[in-house]
Amino acid sequence: MSGYFITFEGGEGAGKTSILHTINTKLKSLGYDVITTREPGGIQIAEQIRSIILNRQNTEMEERTEALLYAAARRQHLVEKVLPALEEGKIILCDRFIDSSLAYQGHARGLGMDEVFTMNQFAIKDCMPDLTLFFDIDPKKGLDRIAANKDRERNRLDFENIEFHNLVYEGYQILAERFPDRIRTIDADQTMEAVEKAAFDRIISYIK
Amino acid sequence: MSGYFITFEGGEGAGKTSILHTINTKLKSLGYDVITTREPGGIQIAEQIRSIILNRQNTEMEERTEALLYAAARRQHLVEKVLPALEEGKIILCDRFIDSSLAYQGHARGLGMDEVFTMNQFAIKDCMPDLTLFFDIDPKKGLDRIAANKDRERNRLDFENIEFHNLVYEGYQILAERFPDRIRTIDADQTMEAVEKAAFDRIISYIK
Repeated sequence: MSGYFITFEGGEGAGKTSILHTINTKLKSLGYDVITTREPGGIQIAEQIRSIILNRQNTEMEERTEALLYAAARRQHLVEKVLPALEEGKIILCDRFIDSSLAYQGHARGLGMDEVFTMNQFAIKDCMPDLTLFFDIDPKKGLDRIAANKDRERNRLDFENIEFHNLVYEGYQILAERFPDRIRTIDADQTMEAVEKAAFDRIISYIK
Repeated sequence: MSGYFITFEGGEGAGKTSILHTINTKLKSLGYDVITTREPGGIQIAEQIRSIILNRQNTEMEERTEALLYAAARRQHLVEKVLPALEEGKIILCDRFIDSSLAYQGHARGLGMDEVFTMNQFAIKDCMPDLTLFFDIDPKKGLDRIAANKDRERNRLDFENIEFHNLVYEGYQILAERFPDRIRTIDADQTMEAVEKAAFDRIISYIK
């Protein structure tokens, strides 16, 4: 594997998605071979799985079923999109990956981070990200940012209560402590430009 | 949990499905509260998952994705159908369960029984069957039986080669050795009546 698999993680309103796209443009202008993606990433099988998860009629969906479906979609996206790009030596910027499952389902939903991690190992088979940026912002501030941005489409998680978002945040903090070599914390409570610069510098110093 | 969760396992043509239904009738006539099921068992979410697995257009389906989807469907079927019946004190006769994943995907497809078992633990969460009957027949003989039965619908696995079915059989043998308390081997190379009686006696002596 000659490329770099870089994931962007954090709670809602941390700014990671728009920063990911800015960094993509910037890296490309410097001549790097970059792709951006997020699960299910247009992969047909993963999209089908995703539509089961998001189907509002599926009110009986149990939490472990949901976690297994996310892992199945993750596997297929990894095999069809991420691994081939890695083999071609590309830089992959991926919006959310395994740490989201650990923070949201493992910690905030209470399934247990270790259990969710072990199950996800079956899906990713040692293909952990090379580098993960955790965009660190107080959950309350993140949610305020979302509320202020009227163009942004609300998703199911935006309507969870603040306790849930606090747990997600706590989950990410635990992960950052547990994987200090892989996960780098970016202070996201600054101007967009400052956060972007911090994230960009991290990536550049890693891939250089 | 006051009921009994009993699973029927074995390769193709071992006769387990028709024997399951005969035993269901027999137990009911004796006054037992019995239900029969098999994954996905009419559970809406599990049926949706199953349709992704069986969709012939999904030629890119990777083996681990498939195993995760089976586990997701298993979880939902367990939660919605098996566990409630167990709590009501019923006897559940289930056509295939975790051992099928271990024998077919873990052993025959080469994903590894231990790995598939660990991943499935996330799905079943210690809810292993109380009793499992392994219908033991030489794979070649099982396939000959199927070929002789023109009414039986062929499924995808019937078209796998004999080496695959031999590996499945080997997988079941390993499991029967590993879980001697739970898995009881029934010699399926006898007349239907004799196999039926052996299976029925096993169940009766367990639930009495």
